[in-house]
Amino acid sequence: MVSVGAIERQTMVFDEPLELSSGIKLPHWQLSYETYGVANSQMSNAVLVCHALSGSQHAAGWYVDNPKDVGWWDNFIGPGKPLDTDRFFVISSNNLGGCHGSTGPLSPHPDDGEPYGGRFPVVTVEDWVHSQKRLAERLGINRFAAVVGGSLGGMQALRWAMDYPDCLQAAVIIAAAAKLTALNIGFNDVARQAIMSDPDFCEGNYYACEKQPQGGLRLARMLAHLTYLSDAHMAARFGRERREAETAYNYDIEFQVESYLRYQGSKFSDCFDANTYLLMTRALDYFDPAASRDNNLTHALAPITAKLLLLSFSSDWRFSPKCSEEITQALLQAKKRVSYIEIESQEGHDSFLLENSDYHRAVSAFMTTLA
Amino acid sequence: MVSVGAIERQTMVFDEPLELSSGIKLPHWQLSYETYGVANSQMSNAVLVCHALSGSQHAAGWYVDNPKDVGWWDNFIGPGKPLDTDRFFVISSNNLGGCHGSTGPLSPHPDDGEPYGGRFPVVTVEDWVHSQKRLAERLGINRFAAVVGGSLGGMQALRWAMDYPDCLQAAVIIAAAAKLTALNIGFNDVARQAIMSDPDFCEGNYYACEKQPQGGLRLARMLAHLTYLSDAHMAARFGRERREAETAYNYDIEFQVESYLRYQGSKFSDCFDANTYLLMTRALDYFDPAASRDNNLTHALAPITAKLLLLSFSSDWRFSPKCSEEITQALLQAKKRVSYIEIESQEGHDSFLLENSDYHRAVSAFMTTLA
Repeated sequence: MVSVGAIERQTMVFDEPLELSSGIKLPHWQLSYETYGVANSQMSNAVLVCHALSGSQHAAGWYVDNPKDVGWWDNFIGPGKPLDTDRFFVISSNNLGGCHGSTGPLSPHPDDGEPYGGRFPVVTVEDWVHSQKRLAERLGINRFAAVVGGSLGGMQALRWAMDYPDCLQAAVIIAAAAKLTALNIGFNDVARQAIMSDPDFCEGNYYACEKQPQGGLRLARMLAHLTYLSDAHMAARFGRERREAETAYNYDIEFQVESYLRYQGSKFSDCFDANTYLLMTRALDYFDPAASRDNNLTHALAPITAKLLLLSFSSDWRFSPKCSEEITQALLQAKKRVSYIEIESQEGHDSFLLENSDYHRAVSAFMTTLA
Repeated sequence: MVSVGAIERQTMVFDEPLELSSGIKLPHWQLSYETYGVANSQMSNAVLVCHALSGSQHAAGWYVDNPKDVGWWDNFIGPGKPLDTDRFFVISSNNLGGCHGSTGPLSPHPDDGEPYGGRFPVVTVEDWVHSQKRLAERLGINRFAAVVGGSLGGMQALRWAMDYPDCLQAAVIIAAAAKLTALNIGFNDVARQAIMSDPDFCEGNYYACEKQPQGGLRLARMLAHLTYLSDAHMAARFGRERREAETAYNYDIEFQVESYLRYQGSKFSDCFDANTYLLMTRALDYFDPAASRDNNLTHALAPITAKLLLLSFSSDWRFSPKCSEEITQALLQAKKRVSYIEIESQEGHDSFLLENSDYHRAVSAFMTTLA
């Protein structure tokens, strides 16, 4: 399939403070973003893509100076793809607190010019949505054709529909949840404890020590990666396959699945920031839009006017179809325009990032209905 | 319910070497064990209990000097309980490589008298079964009425039935599997990596450094504990319950599930040995009795003559009912006498340790049929 091709990372700088859910104000801040496709004169064909835990603004195409660095949703965004850049002007930004150019733990603290590190405030899904709204305003977008995201990105799309009902025509919410289960909060806490108990963590101020809690981040990612796949997928892909025929009777890599996991963990910990990982998992934990409405999700979703598409994947056990069904039920009770599809897939939560013709066709069909 | 009461830990010392699956020989070794109930004159009422990953020989009753230290299966072993000590003479031993008195990483190496530490060989389920057979011989037991175990303990019970068909009348195999899935091997590898990347691990020779990789062991246990429960159980028990009403916007304990997990992790890492944890998880990975029979489980189970009871729990996702069904199917194909029951339960893999009237009734009924 054709790609959007070479793209450039852009930055929008804001000098007006942003007040966060915690009450803390970020005096100056910036968002790193990319765009794909061409805006029409009214900017009415704009689509916002929201990323998940480990994502970035680099959702499609590649960089001229690094053609191998292909965006994380390149199979989804481009000419003729579900988010069709022949029709839509797609915007993807790095979340606040991220480690890909938006203001975050790596950015200089205004007081001393040293990295925020552990001083960077905890941010929420609501904070991200508000900051993205500011970006939209600066780009001259009054109303998105759609806000689209998977997993934590889907939570942002839902929050967009709730907080700025006049500013989007549609929302596509993929493999998301209205709130995390205790099991999911538990997995996040184990990941955070792995990072924070790494002796190189230095209370988050490891940049000054010229260290990084890479061991902890690696463990966190190994664990997360496991839970993003499904038992069936791993059985098909690795089973009990050995690296060597002979049993070594030690704790080195013996099974292929160990090799894969350790590699994935190491690769990730080489290029992602541990403080960002903490903050993204915490935003997941905190997301619970019904909490302020007596846990009544139907009431919480009342402000929505957008048309919604929800998707889940049959083998996803971290954000199971039940989670999407809960949102769908609440939307139906609130008499919203909602479609929901459970896609048959073997790849677990990761399915939302992968090519799957049923999945892609469903999103394409929905996008076609947008003006 | 009545308990077996005060009991004493016993030790059996072996001076005849034990050859392990790895080819390594343990010249001198010992097993720590306990017994409950009274042996009949022919020792034909003996029942062997095999423990799981974090278990020990202390399965029932309490110690005179520590009455609060109640055995891990006290609800299962005792007068009128499923393993009824009014009828049976129950023996429970600590696995070789354990940290509760059997020869293991904490024991002195014969060469220098220093703890084995990282030098202790990797042992297998087969090794445990062979060492337990030696213990049985020394106790004068020719044939067990039953060998009983859950999880890793169930794997031992299965192996007993395969390796010593003449030495047991029955086997009770609870929440076990004929082999681990890739997902389960993955979880074990994350746990081991957590321990081995702890800077206090010192390649397993941390006793000499007067340190312990407690941080790593704590993480390993937090993760394991999560996967032993079920999403439904955790939802009912913790849900999204907060410790405080106000959101703290930090990474301290905010949700009750975090508090519970961290407490469980710390408690465990205070009293368990990290080298033993490594070794027990590796034995789980390696267990695969069909591997040497062209992956034909039915052929592998051919030697069995014992009557078998298999049990699984509906909410167990680490050793799911499917795993027990796989063993049951193979046993049926091999024309063995097997009963299988899936018990309805909410508590996940941990169900095998908990009181559940259907579960206990099923085992009691089976045990009643034994001579």
